[in-house]
Amino acid sequence: MIKKQPSQSNQMWGGRFNSAPSNIMEQINASIGFDKRMWREDISGSKAHCEMLVAQNIISKNDGTSILNGLDQVAKEIENGTFEFKASLEDIHMNIESRLREIIGDAAGKLHTARSRNDQVATDFRLWVRSACDDLVKNIESFQNILSGLCKEHEKSIMPGFTHLQVAQPVTLGMHLGAYWEMMDRDKSRISDCRKRLNESPLGACALSGTGFNTDRAMTAMKLGFDKPMANTMDAVAARDFATEFLFATAQCGLHLSRLAEEIIIWATPQFGFINLSDAWSTGSSIMPQKKNPDAAELVRAKTGRLNGNLIQLMTVLKGLPMTYNKDMQEDKACVFESYDTISLCLESMKGMVESATFNLQPMREAAESGFATATEIADWLVRNLDMPFRNAHHVTGAIVKMAEEKQCRLDQLPLADMQSVEAKITQDIFNSLNLDKAVESRLNK
Amino acid sequence: MIKKQPSQSNQMWGGRFNSAPSNIMEQINASIGFDKRMWREDISGSKAHCEMLVAQNIISKNDGTSILNGLDQVAKEIENGTFEFKASLEDIHMNIESRLREIIGDAAGKLHTARSRNDQVATDFRLWVRSACDDLVKNIESFQNILSGLCKEHEKSIMPGFTHLQVAQPVTLGMHLGAYWEMMDRDKSRISDCRKRLNESPLGACALSGTGFNTDRAMTAMKLGFDKPMANTMDAVAARDFATEFLFATAQCGLHLSRLAEEIIIWATPQFGFINLSDAWSTGSSIMPQKKNPDAAELVRAKTGRLNGNLIQLMTVLKGLPMTYNKDMQEDKACVFESYDTISLCLESMKGMVESATFNLQPMREAAESGFATATEIADWLVRNLDMPFRNAHHVTGAIVKMAEEKQCRLDQLPLADMQSVEAKITQDIFNSLNLDKAVESRLNK
Amino acid sequence: MIKKQPSQSNQMWGGRFNSAPSNIMEQINASIGFDKRMWREDISGSKAHCEMLVAQNIISKNDGTSILNGLDQVAKEIENGTFEFKASLEDIHMNIESRLREIIGDAAGKLHTARSRNDQVATDFRLWVRSACDDLVKNIESFQNILSGLCKEHEKSIMPGFTHLQVAQPVTLGMHLGAYWEMMDRDKSRISDCRKRLNESPLGACALSGTGFNTDRAMTAMKLGFDKPMANTMDAVAARDFATEFLFATAQCGLHLSRLAEEIIIWATPQFGFINLSDAWSTGSSIMPQKKNPDAAELVRAKTGRLNGNLIQLMTVLKGLPMTYNKDMQEDKACVFESYDTISLCLESMKGMVESATFNLQPMREAAESGFATATEIADWLVRNLDMPFRNAHHVTGAIVKMAEEKQCRLDQLPLADMQSVEAKITQDIFNSLNLDKAVESRLNK
Amino acid sequence: MIKKQPSQSNQMWGGRFNSAPSNIMEQINASIGFDKRMWREDISGSKAHCEMLVAQNIISKNDGTSILNGLDQVAKEIENGTFEFKASLEDIHMNIESRLREIIGDAAGKLHTARSRNDQVATDFRLWVRSACDDLVKNIESFQNILSGLCKEHEKSIMPGFTHLQVAQPVTLGMHLGAYWEMMDRDKSRISDCRKRLNESPLGACALSGTGFNTDRAMTAMKLGFDKPMANTMDAVAARDFATEFLFATAQCGLHLSRLAEEIIIWATPQFGFINLSDAWSTGSSIMPQKKNPDAAELVRAKTGRLNGNLIQLMTVLKGLPMTYNKDMQEDKACVFESYDTISLCLESMKGMVESATFNLQPMREAAESGFATATEIADWLVRNLDMPFRNAHHVTGAIVKMAEEKQCRLDQLPLADMQSVEAKITQDIFNSLNLDKAVESRLNK
Repeated sequence: MIKKQPSQSNQMWGGRFNSAPSNIMEQINASIGFDKRMWREDISGSKAHCEMLVAQNIISKNDGTSILNGLDQVAKEIENGTFEFKASLEDIHMNIESRLREIIGDAAGKLHTARSRNDQVATDFRLWVRSACDDLVKNIESFQNILSGLCKEHEKSIMPGFTHLQVAQPVTLGMHLGAYWEMMDRDKSRISDCRKRLNESPLGACALSGTGFNTDRAMTAMKLGFDKPMANTMDAVAARDFATEFLFATAQCGLHLSRLAEEIIIWATPQFGFINLSDAWSTGSSIMPQKKNPDAAELVRAKTGRLNGNLIQLMTVLKGLPMTYNKDMQEDKACVFESYDTISLCLESMKGMVESATFNLQPMREAAESGFATATEIADWLVRNLDMPFRNAHHVTGAIVKMAEEKQCRLDQLPLADMQSVEAKITQDIFNSLNLDKAVESRLNK
Repeated sequence: MIKKQPSQSNQMWGGRFNSAPSNIMEQINASIGFDKRMWREDISGSKAHCEMLVAQNIISKNDGTSILNGLDQVAKEIENGTFEFKASLEDIHMNIESRLREIIGDAAGKLHTARSRNDQVATDFRLWVRSACDDLVKNIESFQNILSGLCKEHEKSIMPGFTHLQVAQPVTLGMHLGAYWEMMDRDKSRISDCRKRLNESPLGACALSGTGFNTDRAMTAMKLGFDKPMANTMDAVAARDFATEFLFATAQCGLHLSRLAEEIIIWATPQFGFINLSDAWSTGSSIMPQKKNPDAAELVRAKTGRLNGNLIQLMTVLKGLPMTYNKDMQEDKACVFESYDTISLCLESMKGMVESATFNLQPMREAAESGFATATEIADWLVRNLDMPFRNAHHVTGAIVKMAEEKQCRLDQLPLADMQSVEAKITQDIFNSLNLDKAVESRLNK
Repeated sequence: MIKKQPSQSNQMWGGRFNSAPSNIMEQINASIGFDKRMWREDISGSKAHCEMLVAQNIISKNDGTSILNGLDQVAKEIENGTFEFKASLEDIHMNIESRLREIIGDAAGKLHTARSRNDQVATDFRLWVRSACDDLVKNIESFQNILSGLCKEHEKSIMPGFTHLQVAQPVTLGMHLGAYWEMMDRDKSRISDCRKRLNESPLGACALSGTGFNTDRAMTAMKLGFDKPMANTMDAVAARDFATEFLFATAQCGLHLSRLAEEIIIWATPQFGFINLSDAWSTGSSIMPQKKNPDAAELVRAKTGRLNGNLIQLMTVLKGLPMTYNKDMQEDKACVFESYDTISLCLESMKGMVESATFNLQPMREAAESGFATATEIADWLVRNLDMPFRNAHHVTGAIVKMAEEKQCRLDQLPLADMQSVEAKITQDIFNSLNLDKAVESRLNK
Repeated sequence: MIKKQPSQSNQMWGGRFNSAPSNIMEQINASIGFDKRMWREDISGSKAHCEMLVAQNIISKNDGTSILNGLDQVAKEIENGTFEFKASLEDIHMNIESRLREIIGDAAGKLHTARSRNDQVATDFRLWVRSACDDLVKNIESFQNILSGLCKEHEKSIMPGFTHLQVAQPVTLGMHLGAYWEMMDRDKSRISDCRKRLNESPLGACALSGTGFNTDRAMTAMKLGFDKPMANTMDAVAARDFATEFLFATAQCGLHLSRLAEEIIIWATPQFGFINLSDAWSTGSSIMPQKKNPDAAELVRAKTGRLNGNLIQLMTVLKGLPMTYNKDMQEDKACVFESYDTISLCLESMKGMVESATFNLQPMREAAESGFATATEIADWLVRNLDMPFRNAHHVTGAIVKMAEEKQCRLDQLPLADMQSVEAKITQDIFNSLNLDKAVESRLNK
């Protein structure tokens, strides 16, 4: 399972080491397989750091220019796909610096003055998560727009509202989908809070305790769009709560999508028949030619597992870690990248599914009519017109429903006489409250 | 294991039922065992609702007064411990209403007009979590105050800063404890965000679709201190993301405490000897008379398990739940109560432990001296004074450290000649940078 | 939230301590609140230990008799409810020993010779989990018996088999319920494996390294029904994988029950109408008098959350714990007790629900008839009779299903001519394969 | 983030579909990215199925031979890396069958007779997990061999045994490492149980209900090394508890390794100094030249997070899934593959680290001498020689330890007179019990 690769000592820290790392060691230790995804952030961070070193006269202007140009060339090579990533160089930081040295020579070694991998990786990772937050907010908003459109379109489309998956009271499809708009709005708000809280710069914290060089952390913070430098340098390199918070926010969004996915799956059964998914969002069976399966909805529902799993992963990793940086924390990135990809794909899928689906309004309305959904209206009529305490009205209505159930008719089909046999003071007026559209309208905006 | 209890049908919804619930059913169904903890919130919510019903002429002023007085009496009975909670009445809502009926008679039945248990429980629960957030913020702040005091006291107390649990660079105990102050500050901020987001009123959403009665949701929202009524009634009864967010925020705080706990445990070993816990915060052994164990720290570290477990519990429950209320959601409260109790106890314990502990400054300083913690200073000296690229300086320093290691001496005890054998241009001046206090001071506030 | 209680130093280990534990310390430290549940196991373990001490001449026969009688009296007091548990005595072990001392005096102090709380609690806990395994196996078996009865009763009751919650092929209700019998059987087998693996005795491992007294660990192991003493004394006090394994086995059983619970909830909708739960296993609504909700099924589905949460709790606790006993491990019991109670209640509830439910065979059969469930039979007919490769037959059948869907008829209602318009060689014989009962019968026992 | 790829309808089930899947749909739906790892199992399963179809005269001998040869060619192409995997063909099953059709033409379509993807994937996956179990057992055994060797080598190497990370009693390094041998042994046993339980064949269950063709499931089971066919066809395609059980067994093994990893990290601090990791298993720092970090141990400790996360992922996915196959279950493989890779890498790393480490016996022995580790010996001496009840002896010893602590001497350095000032009957003989080697020897094999 485990492939051997040619061993090569890491020249960045090998000074006092007598022997090269074992192959297995290189394999468990290397993060380049996933952290190369932060190459843009690593280069931005290095450029900001380099400009500051020049401005503070820590390195010469010449060296600075040569480093900046070199970094631009590295960026171009990665973008063009000509850059060769090496596992023996462990991570994205060393891969870039090593190539920089090939391009500009020894001056490359000056870039790491007054910096450590500990603050460098924390900076890169915060920048990456910040941009992921921005993308997710946009993605959620575009899903909200689709929902808004449908809410408007279906603001009068009657359907049964469910509790316990049993028909409860009539609602509209617009109201139902509007609930998801609200959930998405809170998810967006949580992601924005996460972004706000993480937007402070760890750069300049170095290994853990800052540096004796006369650096300007406020300058690098500003250049990278951070609100300010983080106050405590040990915290700067040790903190990963921004990552767990991001994992939670995406997992919670996934939970909301899983609720909608479950509804789509149930609504798509022939028994409910509330929704038809488009062919583009269904699949067939290799053995049963009649099947049209809501696979995308099932997968969105299932992805919750991965999102929850990623959250619990990082929370397990961080449990009981002493200050400050420990190698355990390298396990923070793969899960964050994966949760971002997963929730992005779930949102895209949900947008596609919902936008292209057909809602079957007739079966929805019929289900609302047949399920005694207006029983509460009877109870409310009794309270309003007979001044009956609600609890008593509830009992009276229970008896009426039982009668309708036995006669297998709808509530508005039950003869007045039958109702009066339960409560003599009921009048014909009660039937006005059993009209579905009126019942719903009377409740809207409450 | 499962105790039988005398069965008694719930008279609140039993109208159309032919037989009473099974005993096992009562046992799995009843929530009174834990939701009685929300009795204050339930009574506040009912009083606000009653006042609104009177103001909107939905019930008479007389009935309203009688209900309000009755609720006050119920509150008094619960406070005095004379109230009898009954599992057959399922939950706190029915227990209170049932007692209200005994006290004021049929008028009690009017309280539930234009309300359902679905919006009632959502309201109670949000009020409870809101107040838990307020308590936690205060608890965290008092821990921060203790940390602030210690940071000031130890702003010059040298100790080794660790990465990978290896001595890295000298820091101060104040800086180290300050990192925890920052973590607590973000935890506080997360809890505050949670409080802000949850502070909208579900009351009046009724079962799921509002009501035909002419209610005033803004009035009840205001009376209960909510910012406004929730916009979508189905969302109002279906949403529990405020609970998962609370569980995450407490679990994240627990993770931070677990890191400090781990450090206390390691520091309390004779090998480190950095800290002595007071007798009041230690325990002994039943067999080994010499033991003084950091049990409280171990328990704080372990409580992370429960906090993570509670989070994953509710996230599992909510996965794939269709709209709107499902009985599954009854499993939302026990975990939230427990996480609140757990994190409160952990904070109290950490405050007690830290406040009463003795920090052993001498061993701390010695550890900083003996672990080559100033090696980075050598590298920085080479960069600054010999204009050596940092990467080269790192290699030179590595060789010097190796030499000191072989001679089993500290870096500042290594003869200049030895250093010069590695790099000829090194001068006596380098020893100035190896002074611990100066090294730390030069780095502070960077 | 946190109640103060009168402080009282623990006399069992307080020898070298100058001050009593803080109240908060007592609160976080005390386990008596939950571990008193192991009182029977603690007394059994102590009696076996005492008998061994006498047999090995480590304590006198007189002391032994006095201890054994005293322990019997303690047992009686606990059983009668006259025993007073004290938090200041921390745990069940100290509560019992302390009472023993009150009853028999100083001889009580001899019981703890050649024993420590570390091996004592490990012994008690293994005994408890062993007996929990035995109970669960019986509970599962009685559920399997109910399922077996229903499988037999419904071995010919046609219903639609679902994949993706879409009608796939006709099956029988017996076959469907039989799938759960199999799952339960594997759950039983996992619990039995857990029991087998844990059945070795930690008693005599003392604190961690055994004892210099001439004890006979094989004798106590035998007396307590263990297969043998654990081989390594450090492992004996440090191991808790038996507890995580128990938590996994119960959580997996809960997952299986959650699948059945989901089906019951869906089947109980008016849209499906496959099942009626008895009144004893349903609840009503406080506002909607017509509702009959499958609360017990929803709660069984939800309990999965707690079971998963408990598993992840203990796995979080154990992560990165050094040898041997750490106080963190005190967090092992509450979750195990709770998972046992939860899964027991879920099994009882499922038994009650399933046993008392009515299966509506007519709607089940109709659903099987209307959902093109026999489409595979057409494809198989084509393969068998026209020697068509299955993949081609699948395409032909797809076209026929599409035709029936457009005509809104069942497959056996589609005219032969229509079928022949898709594939000319189809003959009247194909309709024989579209008979539901035959289709199912031809597949049984395959 | 989400790359578009050219769309291509899946020709295996597209019969009744009017439009091709959306690109996003293809992306969320396709599993070929990870399930191609099961290509060997898929081909074995197909060959066994084909041989059975021939033996039962369901397909002709000619077709069978052509299919078998074609599958061998596909296998060769995959092995050689010339096979082109296509996402548009969704999964490994369709990729292989589609290539088979290119090679042998229409006869390829006969292979899927009396089979469905549902039983096919269940079969492939069980075969894969079975072989993963076999590999893991071997991997664990080779780690156990390394531990055995060290146990023997260090059976008399004195070190302090710890509880609560405090020195408790003297043990040997052999005994300490032996505890891990035991843990590994139980992990092996759990993996073996998992293998036993999963070794039944789902093949022939088809979509969910078997087939009307005259298949011989016992024959395919036998050919594939299964013990027998699974009894219930719906269970056969719906069950994934073998996957959760595998995930649990690997996560538990990871927990055990995380405990050893934590010890290595603590032992490698200069404060403990119990262990030196070889250079091949350490890394350096990019800024602190003196650092030698135990990265591999930290990563092994951290990997617990992923293993726990994967377990919770699949348990979340399976919660509340109705019968039988749902697309959610596609999320079962990536986590299982990953947990297998992770635990394999952790075991390899631990073997390398432990095998190449140097244990520093002198500091270990000194730590055992200086930590009052023999205090229990004093208490035991008092019990044995003065017939003092253990509890009293514990108190006396506590006082003696306190005295030694104040005098800052070891217990065997405390003058007899001092001891006698606590308990007058103590004699010179007590010092015999304070010899470390004797103390340990007297306890071994207890």
